[in-house]
Amino acid sequence: MEFQFLGTSSGTPSKSRNVTALALRSLGASRAARHWSLVDCGEGTQHRILRTPWSLNDLAAIFITHMHGDHCYGLPGLLASAGMMNRTAPLALVGPAPLRPFVEGVMATTELGLPFPIAFVDVTALEGVEVLPDLVVRATALSHRMPCWAYSFTERQVERKLDTARLDAAGVARGEAWGALQHGREVVLADGRVLRPEDWLLPGRKPRKVIVGGDNDTPGLLAEEARDAGVLIHEATYTEAVLRKVGPGPRHSSARMTASAAAAAGVPNLVLTHFSPRYQDGEGAPSIREVEDEAREVYRGQLFLARDFDRFELDREGQLHRRPREGGNPS
Amino acid sequence: MEFQFLGTSSGTPSKSRNVTALALRSLGASRAARHWSLVDCGEGTQHRILRTPWSLNDLAAIFITHMHGDHCYGLPGLLASAGMMNRTAPLALVGPAPLRPFVEGVMATTELGLPFPIAFVDVTALEGVEVLPDLVVRATALSHRMPCWAYSFTERQVERKLDTARLDAAGVARGEAWGALQHGREVVLADGRVLRPEDWLLPGRKPRKVIVGGDNDTPGLLAEEARDAGVLIHEATYTEAVLRKVGPGPRHSSARMTASAAAAAGVPNLVLTHFSPRYQDGEGAPSIREVEDEAREVYRGQLFLARDFDRFELDREGQLHRRPREGGNPS
Repeated sequence: MEFQFLGTSSGTPSKSRNVTALALRSLGASRAARHWSLVDCGEGTQHRILRTPWSLNDLAAIFITHMHGDHCYGLPGLLASAGMMNRTAPLALVGPAPLRPFVEGVMATTELGLPFPIAFVDVTALEGVEVLPDLVVRATALSHRMPCWAYSFTERQVERKLDTARLDAAGVARGEAWGALQHGREVVLADGRVLRPEDWLLPGRKPRKVIVGGDNDTPGLLAEEARDAGVLIHEATYTEAVLRKVGPGPRHSSARMTASAAAAAGVPNLVLTHFSPRYQDGEGAPSIREVEDEAREVYRGQLFLARDFDRFELDREGQLHRRPREGGNPS
Repeated sequence: MEFQFLGTSSGTPSKSRNVTALALRSLGASRAARHWSLVDCGEGTQHRILRTPWSLNDLAAIFITHMHGDHCYGLPGLLASAGMMNRTAPLALVGPAPLRPFVEGVMATTELGLPFPIAFVDVTALEGVEVLPDLVVRATALSHRMPCWAYSFTERQVERKLDTARLDAAGVARGEAWGALQHGREVVLADGRVLRPEDWLLPGRKPRKVIVGGDNDTPGLLAEEARDAGVLIHEATYTEAVLRKVGPGPRHSSARMTASAAAAAGVPNLVLTHFSPRYQDGEGAPSIREVEDEAREVYRGQLFLARDFDRFELDREGQLHRRPREGGNPS
């Protein structure tokens, strides 16, 4: 699985960070793997996409964690641009109930017609809906100033190897039968025996799972969902010291809160994002290193602090790799 | 007067041009001169502003030419960011009737509260409303796929010099009386004579006037308004050849159409903008020079093709100067 940060700032954009958006896709061999999803879509997300290889034509679904503007104000422009590119494939929009009146209200007042249909899915009715062909998506309610969710993306299918030892022992000849079983097809042998693929495939590896949190002041709410996840992407808007100064009103997590919850859940990879714009590079402003140091004090797994255009790959063994940035100039 | 282009692309952003927005202010000596206005506010306008000296705290008014998304989708995020900066001064929003339900609908569905009041002004009721202290703003209806307007900005007051020859001849001594008249105050002399400033000030220079057009396929509609203007800023989305290929459906102007209208109106400075994203630098794509060459064939005044971050100053003598670009990296 692969994901790329298109925005990592909280509230307002800064010169180096845009407001929240994340591109994500599975890296399976199937055709579906060209499709990708967006989690959140702050203003300027389409501008970020212009500087990456992601194409609006291959975008399958957009998942909105909550309706604060820094997570959804880029939607109308992105839809309009996809329309001007003559996209015709349906697009799923998953999010809280106000997402639909938000989008439809903007479309009505700005006379925005789209050449593709939008399939709205209310996040509370997501269970059992197959939004993506290759990933199972689940939503977990978080704690913020307005209803907010985390989305988890789990591989629907994993490669499974043939149990060749047992096939040999059963006298099933290599060749066509083996190939059919490997591809999930039932086989009827010349002697009348019926072989069902599920009986002759070894247990698959653990499906990869990535959780993308929205704004949240109680990261422990993701404890259960995170237990079998390879990656937790979660906000750490500021340090404990800043949180104490700001007060609990904004209902965000500190680095310590998020890192502690990730440690308790045993999640092996933690990516922090959604940083307060007070953290600027240089200029004598507080450094993002303060956020990192605080998280490292309590979290012993692999820790990353996301930057705009950072691209990550979660390999089949569950290792998370930060890839060289794509998209040229990160500003 | 001074103005800076924050976006010069039509429809969708490109890597070097954002969608439409223009910052404008008068350069008078008065305190009001710190205030500035925005004409249109495409998505990403607040990101552009971050790279300029313009401050959201000093923004007095936003004028929307029409409700297509590439001219207004940056509004909600800009309002939200101004709110997060704790702006308290009222902000005027001038535009077509759907502007108000657009903004209010977004505010309601995304729970956006603002610490400053918005004063909505319907563009059809603009006449006689003093939106800006230092500039008279007038709207002219244009011709596009939806109702669309041009805004003209004219200096409300110009400096006027004392008629010193007549004052000397009338035996009014230099000093306090002259100063009072210069500052527009009535003077009662020791001999009982009452001097009214308007009687002792020389006629002022021509007030500076800038017209900022919206999308429009009939630039001649601005003929009357442009007759006493120093600058016309108008779309020239593509060349005649492209317009013929695209057809009249989008209802935009070619470079020739705009340049011809400007020539006919006798406007001394023409700035073209709102270029189709088909014009990319390099890459073998059609060059923006084609648009420029076509305009130059019919227009003999000072011609500019706007680029993002281009800053212009219209001096008291009516000369338009392109200033070195501000905002660093234009991408």
